[in-house]
Amino acid sequence: MTDVAPCGILNRMVEYQRHVDAVFAAIADPTRRAILARVARKPATVTEIARPFPVSLNAISKHLMVLERAGLIRREVVGREHHCSIEPKRLRDAVAWFDHYRMFWEDRLDSLERHLVARRKRPHS
Amino acid sequence: MTDVAPCGILNRMVEYQRHVDAVFAAIADPTRRAILARVARKPATVTEIARPFPVSLNAISKHLMVLERAGLIRREVVGREHHCSIEPKRLRDAVAWFDHYRMFWEDRLDSLERHLVARRKRPHS
Repeated sequence: MTDVAPCGILNRMVEYQRHVDAVFAAIADPTRRAILARVARKPATVTEIARPFPVSLNAISKHLMVLERAGLIRREVVGREHHCSIEPKRLRDAVAWFDHYRMFWEDRLDSLERHLVARRKRPHS
Repeated sequence: MTDVAPCGILNRMVEYQRHVDAVFAAIADPTRRAILARVARKPATVTEIARPFPVSLNAISKHLMVLERAGLIRREVVGREHHCSIEPKRLRDAVAWFDHYRMFWEDRLDSLERHLVARRKRPHS
């Protein structure tokens, strides 16, 4: 019984890794990022989503499938239409990955701020 | 001359898109994320980076090349050794992409907070 808890944690970590893999792979494509921006503005049908893109409806359907598998969009079937809307939870999980690296640029900004404050305090030469 | 400025903006947007594509594709792989975490802790040689991974040095070299092309690591040749360190600028640029979507989860947290505050104010039933 003792290994139940670590196994649970490990499983959740593996699951998190898989989700993050899928999210980053999905948003590595500019068309998929544009589709996500479209459905974030307003839920839409597949035809509405495809309209402004200079590619086939079939290509857009494939992109939507990648986004759906990554858990980034939700699809609801209403009659004959598929309504797509954004599912932000996985985006929030993925952005958390960057938190480990934030100190690199935040530290740099702090240094820059200190430098500018020090310069302002110095008498004009 | 009038189209110089919009062209400049467009070029920068295209360049930003390409950088973001490369960053997300690079970090979509768990081994590359682990390599990045390793060099973020401390700059290291290729051999040092490869040591804990159960894959060949050649495989690690390929992952490093992807990270380098995405602008996420910097490689300096010192004598016969390649020293790799993190280059955080592109990560900062990529994380900015999530800002458009932040309102989705922050709004939800705000709603939750409002709900909890309202519940706390209500007399116990």
